[in-house]
Amino acid sequence: MFIRNAWYVAAWDFELAGGPIGRRICGDPVVFYRDAEGRAAALADRCCHRGAPLHLGEVVERGLQCGYHGLVFARDGRCVAIPGQDAIPSTAAVRAYPVVERNEIVWIWMGEPERADSTAIVEYPFNDDYANWPHKREVYALEANYLLVLDNLMDLTHLAYVHRRTVGGNPSAHVNARMTSTPTERGVQFSRWLLDCAPPATYAKAVRFSGNVDRWQEFEFVAPGTVLQWTGATDAGTGADEGRREGGFSLRIFHGVTPETEGSCHYFWSAANGYSQDDPGATDRLFEEIAATFMEDKALLAEQQASLAESGETGLVDIKADVARIQMRRVIRRLIEAEASRPGPETC
Amino acid sequence: MFIRNAWYVAAWDFELAGGPIGRRICGDPVVFYRDAEGRAAALADRCCHRGAPLHLGEVVERGLQCGYHGLVFARDGRCVAIPGQDAIPSTAAVRAYPVVERNEIVWIWMGEPERADSTAIVEYPFNDDYANWPHKREVYALEANYLLVLDNLMDLTHLAYVHRRTVGGNPSAHVNARMTSTPTERGVQFSRWLLDCAPPATYAKAVRFSGNVDRWQEFEFVAPGTVLQWTGATDAGTGADEGRREGGFSLRIFHGVTPETEGSCHYFWSAANGYSQDDPGATDRLFEEIAATFMEDKALLAEQQASLAESGETGLVDIKADVARIQMRRVIRRLIEAEASRPGPETC
Amino acid sequence: MFIRNAWYVAAWDFELAGGPIGRRICGDPVVFYRDAEGRAAALADRCCHRGAPLHLGEVVERGLQCGYHGLVFARDGRCVAIPGQDAIPSTAAVRAYPVVERNEIVWIWMGEPERADSTAIVEYPFNDDYANWPHKREVYALEANYLLVLDNLMDLTHLAYVHRRTVGGNPSAHVNARMTSTPTERGVQFSRWLLDCAPPATYAKAVRFSGNVDRWQEFEFVAPGTVLQWTGATDAGTGADEGRREGGFSLRIFHGVTPETEGSCHYFWSAANGYSQDDPGATDRLFEEIAATFMEDKALLAEQQASLAESGETGLVDIKADVARIQMRRVIRRLIEAEASRPGPETC
Repeated sequence: MFIRNAWYVAAWDFELAGGPIGRRICGDPVVFYRDAEGRAAALADRCCHRGAPLHLGEVVERGLQCGYHGLVFARDGRCVAIPGQDAIPSTAAVRAYPVVERNEIVWIWMGEPERADSTAIVEYPFNDDYANWPHKREVYALEANYLLVLDNLMDLTHLAYVHRRTVGGNPSAHVNARMTSTPTERGVQFSRWLLDCAPPATYAKAVRFSGNVDRWQEFEFVAPGTVLQWTGATDAGTGADEGRREGGFSLRIFHGVTPETEGSCHYFWSAANGYSQDDPGATDRLFEEIAATFMEDKALLAEQQASLAESGETGLVDIKADVARIQMRRVIRRLIEAEASRPGPETC
Repeated sequence: MFIRNAWYVAAWDFELAGGPIGRRICGDPVVFYRDAEGRAAALADRCCHRGAPLHLGEVVERGLQCGYHGLVFARDGRCVAIPGQDAIPSTAAVRAYPVVERNEIVWIWMGEPERADSTAIVEYPFNDDYANWPHKREVYALEANYLLVLDNLMDLTHLAYVHRRTVGGNPSAHVNARMTSTPTERGVQFSRWLLDCAPPATYAKAVRFSGNVDRWQEFEFVAPGTVLQWTGATDAGTGADEGRREGGFSLRIFHGVTPETEGSCHYFWSAANGYSQDDPGATDRLFEEIAATFMEDKALLAEQQASLAESGETGLVDIKADVARIQMRRVIRRLIEAEASRPGPETC
Repeated sequence: MFIRNAWYVAAWDFELAGGPIGRRICGDPVVFYRDAEGRAAALADRCCHRGAPLHLGEVVERGLQCGYHGLVFARDGRCVAIPGQDAIPSTAAVRAYPVVERNEIVWIWMGEPERADSTAIVEYPFNDDYANWPHKREVYALEANYLLVLDNLMDLTHLAYVHRRTVGGNPSAHVNARMTSTPTERGVQFSRWLLDCAPPATYAKAVRFSGNVDRWQEFEFVAPGTVLQWTGATDAGTGADEGRREGGFSLRIFHGVTPETEGSCHYFWSAANGYSQDDPGATDRLFEEIAATFMEDKALLAEQQASLAESGETGLVDIKADVARIQMRRVIRRLIEAEASRPGPETC
């Protein structure tokens, strides 16, 4: 059960450079491509003739051509050419999905097309600002329901255990962080402060600190699958918690978590260097550190998914650290219920 | 749902040289072997003692010996030896399948043995004629229902897209081919003429043409799973379409498509060189070209199968190029319906 | 359907040296570890917080700490620490399984804990006696229901076919062995004598015989999954069958067969050298020979499992060689029926 009337991250823009790609989103097989004018497009990944996946085809002047018998589909899903015949039956068409390209991201709307409103897309201008936020991007295939990934991002006490060798640092610092979590209209915002603590390995590698640091973690979840992260640290006692955050370590991570199936998802992320913008090596090293960290999550999440797929969530016990996670789950549940109770397009 | 009262290609004769082989046919696990006299035989691949697959056993004087506890089965399926005891219960037996070896092919009958009539087996004398039709043979495991492979062979417009880099050639030539398709008693026959067109890469590599060619494709489908192909080309305008087909390029392909499961099949094929019979290198090169071509089909068919397994064929749209394919499917449907409505052996 | 109120081999003691391990037993995911005092323990392998497998965690002073958010569980399953909060809800707990460590083996009780009686554990002192029975140990993952492995051990005529190149030797010797099989309170005991037969390859490699040998195979099955084997040979006619078994070849094998799922099991075995105790190389060579032999069983059992998973055991025919196997199956069936008819703990 997925929220359908919503924008999901479907691809990084650069992924469409090499021709059509097939990618399952919310259970639907979808083909993504750039048309002859270079605009991103998304169609059901199944030719209406013999069911061959359209991602095996290629882009031609009039649209996407099936690689089996040559039918051509326009970006609105209509078949516009059938080799060997002039008449094109009106039933010859495939589903088209609304897509919007913005901030280096290809977004897709999985629900009723007439309800797609591009103003609802999360803004992430940092992806367009290489001068102040040089960054690198990646997409991982995770063997876990997308909610488990969001859970992971909403409860940062896991850093003390899963990532103690990388970004984690001192367990008690994490557990005793000063945390505030606030529901928003479409999600949850939380911030955590770890004051006067030792800098974790990743930070110390990137920036020279005098000793202990004041460390912040600001996260915003926007339903259904985006998490915006701003994290950093400055020398302890120099006023980071009063707004003076320059001169230390700072990074931004965009997380886009998109359901593939009930047991898997696509995890898109970009990591931006906010402390050493003129050093491409620093951006590379930051990316490598984050990638290593996320690999730790990837392995754990796959095992958690297998466990929950077998036994479900019944009987699990919530703890205090779950506060933002529980708020996030409430937002998701509310949106799914609203979608289920709203009259469908055919009854409007 | 498979046609059971029919002959299917089960193996190439050479495949039985190294001892018993296990192969699933129409869903049934079957063991094929040569008995002590060298005759091909086929039994259910499951010992009646403890269920071990018989293909793990070996051929002994009296029959096929199970590799687990040594029971021996004659070619009619009766158990003829049980180590450690003299009496053999009448229930100790496995199913035997009628087999016929002809034209280098081991054929199997999957239905009621008393209805097996070897005169119904498709004749293919070219496999026995190495002087005029030197050839090489192969079998592929395809991850696709056998009907998708037959579909593929019945609609050659796919050459223009799937095989454009090998045997395909000019798309419009294929699409505008002069095609006639005729139902036969047990199948479909069709021929296609591509007149005055550029020779495809495979042909041009094999034979030196003056320029454009007249190209023919003669196909005969015989239910349930055989397709006989004669294909060739001569210099354009030299009368190939009036019967003068010597001196150019010509090949014969035998296609035997045998269901393994609902989602997979065995694809047996032989490719015979009809243009350069005294040059073994030419036969080898032809075989390699065809093999590369079929690998293109193999990849596409596996993706098509996955797509149709998920969504079915409902809503698919037929096009003009489907004419022979639709006739083929009608034959299959007719035979399945006839088999379903005929009284079974127990009620005769 | 497994016998639950029973002790199963869960692990070799050395397997817990490197930290927690996850292992499925009778369908249950279980984590095994040594606590801070070095005692073996077994818990459900699923944290009660977010379902993460506990085998990803690590042992701390107070118990096993989950690797995701740091909850700690004592060996009785109670949660004793939740990072970030003082109160621990009474529902925060996981199932604990009784375990006993004895004879280098970690045993687990899969049923009602109050019925666990450690005096019912099979004694195997040879594992503690390296002076007289130097040995090596192994565990294999077998893709077969555990009963198929027990079947295999209860019908040794398979040596003549599956292992003819290793421990098997002459088929007719095996088939004509003098066999007695006797039900016991909790299992079956059988002995087989192969008198005046050629020594099999494994034996002849290990010991120098004058010529033919008298060979014994003494097996005891103890439900649900243990088989104790004593096998050997001395020069023919020197009185082994009257008790004089010194001076030849002799080995003991402990077999512990533990269900993992309905289609797979864990196969624990130790092979002890009873003929050349002062030569570690002899023990190593014996182990390698046995390992090679069991690999032959492993391959065959996986194929038998696949065959029976498809078609079941209905219609299979018992033979004379099955006598001990049938007795073993009766014991298992009797125990399963007794367990099914006994009132559960909640109704006592």
